[in-house]
Amino acid sequence: MIMAFENPLIKEILEKYRRMWAIHHASSVLGWDMEVNMPKMGIQERSVAEGELSVLSQELLLHPEFTAMVEKAAEQDSLSEEEHGIVRVLQRDIKINSSFPPDFVRELSKTTSMATSAWAEAKEKGDYDKFAPWLDNIMELTKKAADYLGYDKYPYDALLDLFEEGLTTSDVERIFSKIETDLKPVLDKILAGDKVPKEHPLEKLKYDTPAMKEVNEEIVRMFGFPLGERSRIDISPHPFTTEFGVNDVRITTRYEGFDFKRSILSTVHEFGHALYELQQNPEFMFTPIIGGVSLGIHESQSRFWENIIGRSMEFAELIYPVLKKHVPEVSQYTPEELYWYFNTVRPDLIRTEADVVTYNFHILVRFKIEKIMINEGIKAKDLPELWNEQMEALLGIKPKNYAEGILQDIHWAHGTIGYFPTYTIGTLLSAQFADYMQRDIGSIGNYVRDRNFEPIKSWLREKIHRYGSIYPPKELLKRSIGEQLNADYFTEYVKKKYL
Amino acid sequence: MIMAFENPLIKEILEKYRRMWAIHHASSVLGWDMEVNMPKMGIQERSVAEGELSVLSQELLLHPEFTAMVEKAAEQDSLSEEEHGIVRVLQRDIKINSSFPPDFVRELSKTTSMATSAWAEAKEKGDYDKFAPWLDNIMELTKKAADYLGYDKYPYDALLDLFEEGLTTSDVERIFSKIETDLKPVLDKILAGDKVPKEHPLEKLKYDTPAMKEVNEEIVRMFGFPLGERSRIDISPHPFTTEFGVNDVRITTRYEGFDFKRSILSTVHEFGHALYELQQNPEFMFTPIIGGVSLGIHESQSRFWENIIGRSMEFAELIYPVLKKHVPEVSQYTPEELYWYFNTVRPDLIRTEADVVTYNFHILVRFKIEKIMINEGIKAKDLPELWNEQMEALLGIKPKNYAEGILQDIHWAHGTIGYFPTYTIGTLLSAQFADYMQRDIGSIGNYVRDRNFEPIKSWLREKIHRYGSIYPPKELLKRSIGEQLNADYFTEYVKKKYL
Repeated sequence: MIMAFENPLIKEILEKYRRMWAIHHASSVLGWDMEVNMPKMGIQERSVAEGELSVLSQELLLHPEFTAMVEKAAEQDSLSEEEHGIVRVLQRDIKINSSFPPDFVRELSKTTSMATSAWAEAKEKGDYDKFAPWLDNIMELTKKAADYLGYDKYPYDALLDLFEEGLTTSDVERIFSKIETDLKPVLDKILAGDKVPKEHPLEKLKYDTPAMKEVNEEIVRMFGFPLGERSRIDISPHPFTTEFGVNDVRITTRYEGFDFKRSILSTVHEFGHALYELQQNPEFMFTPIIGGVSLGIHESQSRFWENIIGRSMEFAELIYPVLKKHVPEVSQYTPEELYWYFNTVRPDLIRTEADVVTYNFHILVRFKIEKIMINEGIKAKDLPELWNEQMEALLGIKPKNYAEGILQDIHWAHGTIGYFPTYTIGTLLSAQFADYMQRDIGSIGNYVRDRNFEPIKSWLREKIHRYGSIYPPKELLKRSIGEQLNADYFTEYVKKKYL
Repeated sequence: MIMAFENPLIKEILEKYRRMWAIHHASSVLGWDMEVNMPKMGIQERSVAEGELSVLSQELLLHPEFTAMVEKAAEQDSLSEEEHGIVRVLQRDIKINSSFPPDFVRELSKTTSMATSAWAEAKEKGDYDKFAPWLDNIMELTKKAADYLGYDKYPYDALLDLFEEGLTTSDVERIFSKIETDLKPVLDKILAGDKVPKEHPLEKLKYDTPAMKEVNEEIVRMFGFPLGERSRIDISPHPFTTEFGVNDVRITTRYEGFDFKRSILSTVHEFGHALYELQQNPEFMFTPIIGGVSLGIHESQSRFWENIIGRSMEFAELIYPVLKKHVPEVSQYTPEELYWYFNTVRPDLIRTEADVVTYNFHILVRFKIEKIMINEGIKAKDLPELWNEQMEALLGIKPKNYAEGILQDIHWAHGTIGYFPTYTIGTLLSAQFADYMQRDIGSIGNYVRDRNFEPIKSWLREKIHRYGSIYPPKELLKRSIGEQLNADYFTEYVKKKYL
């Protein structure tokens, strides 16, 4: 059932847009296949195909006839909310895609590709000097990109907006100052006390991949994941979710053979992303307003399932028999021990290994550095000191080498600056949504205990998912919970859980 | 290493062509994914995406600027063989794609889609009348298609040429009259004698899929299939080969849980298709001359590996220990019994179940019917009688119902008329190539016994594969073996094997 949009101009726009949608669909399948199936040597031909498709799609989007139609539609005042959304999303895409001169795009792409090799070598050898000049280049180019995109106050605003529409430096500063003043003392208290384990023997337990696959499948089936009908689970080293439309949403997970919570929680995390796509309004099929609206809102959905559901006591109790069936060694532990295994807190140098509480401080370190990199123009050579200082101040630990310090993430080498804050936005929002959800439907834990996930999914669909990308994130929040992002909910969640 | 084509106009053409290549690459991945991975409900969005991409690709091909460049290049007399090939393939594609008026394409597509449902229902209910009117429609449209494409002598020529460039009704008549006069008596003799088993107890042996997967992988690894590097094997109900370029060639196979030769021989068959693509000249990457030239030549490669290699005594001996390891029940039989299991001959009503010898008679029945359908305009209502008569005359058996008779294949419902003969062309050519190969390198069986497949692969590469699509099939045969298709080689192969 595809929505019959009334406005004839919108109809015409959607007719033309379907072709861009098809290219996007194909590119997504190519990308998924590359991570999950592609034989190694397929990379050259695959990259050429992806490059050609991306240029083609951009040409269709920026075709003068198409942009003129979108501009004309923007002037009409008889549009429905959905039609407004279509015009808004297309205008934004056109603006971003037409901001950069072709020469700049080529230079950026060449630089980031060389910087990525330099980063890999630098990380392997622990030699920051190999990467520093590239980081300076990327910073210069990124500042240029911000200028092309335009901004009101700070160049960093333009970059944040790219990943989270409407997000500003001041927004992120406000969020993190709350985290520093409110969450930091909570973390210190947790670490000083002995209620919360810093490590757990289950971290060392080895498992067989087929057994853990069964566990993951049983868990997402309990959630109602339509495996085989509208979705699949595959394996990739860096788990991700991708959607080829509302009826084909795929997640991946990882099996390292030990410390099974990584596999389970990452499956549950990706399920949250997938549910956002599966619960889109099918009437928006083939239009620009189908699909999650932003990285931050998307991450709020994955973190909701990972943290609020997956790290709850009721979840530990729910999956305990499933785990025992497939990994018999688990029966040496109680469900409560399983719960604490899922909820250890300990400062770690590596962001991707971090627990719920310390994670945000990893993002804070990166935000502080990105902000002064872009807005104040600090040089790459001065960054490691800053990194180490911040790690010590916030988490009380200091990298012994660059690989476990400033060289750990690939993001900056990729030219992705302004992306990290969306991780924290998602984490904070997940607690905020949970609070509002419980006001409406009562204890989430009770639903988990009863294996009754429908009311939870319904709430998410009604409040968030069904809007697709009609509204930008801040407007969506206004409509769904009537309040903007507020870090207090997350701090309360942590306090309640750990203190 | 991509070839530096010298001619500036050809360079410009290839530059533009790369975009069509990318769409073709993407469509192939979408098609493969649909058969192998796609969750059921993904079909609607996938079909829309494929439809849009196919229209887009056609628009690029028929863009006046592009066709003018191709026409201009065709007039140049300084082109290399490869450049000539590029122009030839593009001219042919342009001609075929521009032959049909859009209204006709729409009508054909609507008719075949409805005819396919009607066929499925008719087959299920064994009710030919449900399909007959659709078959009449399709015949009318197909005759129209032949008129649009143009032909010298018979409308059926135009259809044959679509699947096998340059093939005519007279060619196929000549081939099949040899099969009727020479191969039919051989078949009768085989069936009258008691040397060749008509059935074999191994047909009933059950196996586990994971075990048979190991067997298939070990076999293709012996052949040198670059699993994980440049290829993969997956599962699909109808095995097929697809290529996304020279360095990503994938086959599928089937596991029915019994009668393991179906799984092994279909894997070996698809390996033959895959090898043709893997042994393309990498210098032709991203150009229209990379890839197998026609269905018939492609089938000759798959049948070569399936029949000449896979059904040989040396192959039975070679895989005997592999089979015993994974399917211990096989040790109750000798390698010679395994050989005869692979080489039973018995008339069967179903084409896809047929053995090497009877297979061609199934095709002959279809060819006779297609020819008079298109060239003489017989009506659908008169076809079943003709079918049954022919089956009785050629194989001595008669269908008891339509499902095991004229309704068994999906091809006509799909509007694919003129395709069947390429199956026999491939089968016949495989024996002809084997004969020429042995003149050059000696006994194929000895290489199989020694697990030394490189000389066989080399011969195929040098004689056939490396030419890609530079030359049309008849020209390719002239260059590779200096002789056109000749059914005698196959008859000799059958005689030698069975009498």
